[in-house]
Amino acid sequence: MQTRPIITRGQPLAGGRVPAVCAPLVGRTPEALAAEAVAVVAKQPDLLEWRVDFFQDLGDTQAVLAAGAQVRRAAGGIPILFTRRSEREGGQRIGVGEPQVIALYEAVARAGLVDLLDFEMGSPQGDIDRVRAACVAHRLPLVLSFHDFQRTPATGDLQERFARAHRLGADVAKVAVMPQSIEDVHRLLGATLEASRTLPIPVISMAMGGLGAVSRVCGGVFGSALTFAVGAAPSAPGQMPIEDVRAALAVLARATSG
Amino acid sequence: MQTRPIITRGQPLAGGRVPAVCAPLVGRTPEALAAEAVAVVAKQPDLLEWRVDFFQDLGDTQAVLAAGAQVRRAAGGIPILFTRRSEREGGQRIGVGEPQVIALYEAVARAGLVDLLDFEMGSPQGDIDRVRAACVAHRLPLVLSFHDFQRTPATGDLQERFARAHRLGADVAKVAVMPQSIEDVHRLLGATLEASRTLPIPVISMAMGGLGAVSRVCGGVFGSALTFAVGAAPSAPGQMPIEDVRAALAVLARATSG
Repeated sequence: MQTRPIITRGQPLAGGRVPAVCAPLVGRTPEALAAEAVAVVAKQPDLLEWRVDFFQDLGDTQAVLAAGAQVRRAAGGIPILFTRRSEREGGQRIGVGEPQVIALYEAVARAGLVDLLDFEMGSPQGDIDRVRAACVAHRLPLVLSFHDFQRTPATGDLQERFARAHRLGADVAKVAVMPQSIEDVHRLLGATLEASRTLPIPVISMAMGGLGAVSRVCGGVFGSALTFAVGAAPSAPGQMPIEDVRAALAVLARATSG
Repeated sequence: MQTRPIITRGQPLAGGRVPAVCAPLVGRTPEALAAEAVAVVAKQPDLLEWRVDFFQDLGDTQAVLAAGAQVRRAAGGIPILFTRRSEREGGQRIGVGEPQVIALYEAVARAGLVDLLDFEMGSPQGDIDRVRAACVAHRLPLVLSFHDFQRTPATGDLQERFARAHRLGADVAKVAVMPQSIEDVHRLLGATLEASRTLPIPVISMAMGGLGAVSRVCGGVFGSALTFAVGAAPSAPGQMPIEDVRAALAVLARATSG
């Protein structure tokens, strides 16, 4: 099993070590975001995810670009994933319509402030096409994602979500679910493994909440290229401190190579 | 999910924390065994497994009892699992016939030097009956075990191994396999989960080797009550240092309770 790494700027994330560790940024103001970025970067995640739906000035493109430039400077070379998580899929409520969000993705891609974009595969086809076109134009990989904060879909549906992301042109497929049982966690890991074997793109998965914590540590063994961990503040339930995730991953890496 | 703990001396192992951590003792001479026991006990495993097939004087019951008394003293209250692993299931070659091995199990049980016995479920029914009778007579729980050092049986066969242990009168069912792929590891975890849900006894499982390392850290989440880790020397491929296993388990425990 060789889990396929995510490629940014033509290089495998974390030098090809999988899973890479991604820490979210959830600052609401430019000042909070800047301070958060400095604190999180000090913990040296392999990737930063800027969850722009937390940002209060999301409707002001110039404010977003200015904040993005701040994050870019603070990142000190760590690649940045740009994500507007929709309220429907567990994100914050924003006072901005979808056309404005798409325009924001295009502006941020054009400005060269980020290295990957995350967009939801459940979006209208036209919106996905526009975000995809911005990614192609600016040579940014596109993560197409699916989230269910209530339950874990049937195994066939999980597999279909990964496959759909690929069909829609994703460079990375991401599926995040809420388990109701350990059986759900086991099924998610199985679907991840199958997708990582059959699709030609990297995949990311996680089972959220305390019940799913094991997936954030062991998902990489079952084909997930990325795990999310807390630098300063979590962006989803069940995320562990980055120090804890790194310690557990180091144990697994030693044991696997030994 | 509440993984069922192993009971020794009427108490749940490790105070009910699962998976409990068991460190093997593989000394060949009484002197080596005594030194090993002291070194391993310093690392405070929840259980010691005396792998008596490594012991050179296995054919001398008095020598085994004397060594067992040494181990008991060194253990300082840590319960002891007594195991003769057969060569067929990955143990050492011993110059002692099966009737003598059974008699040795009976003598060790009678002497009160150990707290659990491990015997292979693939043994002749008469031998299992005798070991079971010794366990009942001396109120010792019996682990009935299955090992495949070459491959991972089909999922139905794995489930049948757990169920067979229970049918044969085991207090604990143990299945250890060698994975050829991560899919094998995933199947073992699934069969473990199913067995832990359906059987009224604790179950133990592990996928061996580097490929299976993840099962030694995450098996407890999927229903395994015990994981084996190295105190001084490994007894099977893929066992990690006890410090590493404890560190990874602590990460999972914090994340699950948080």
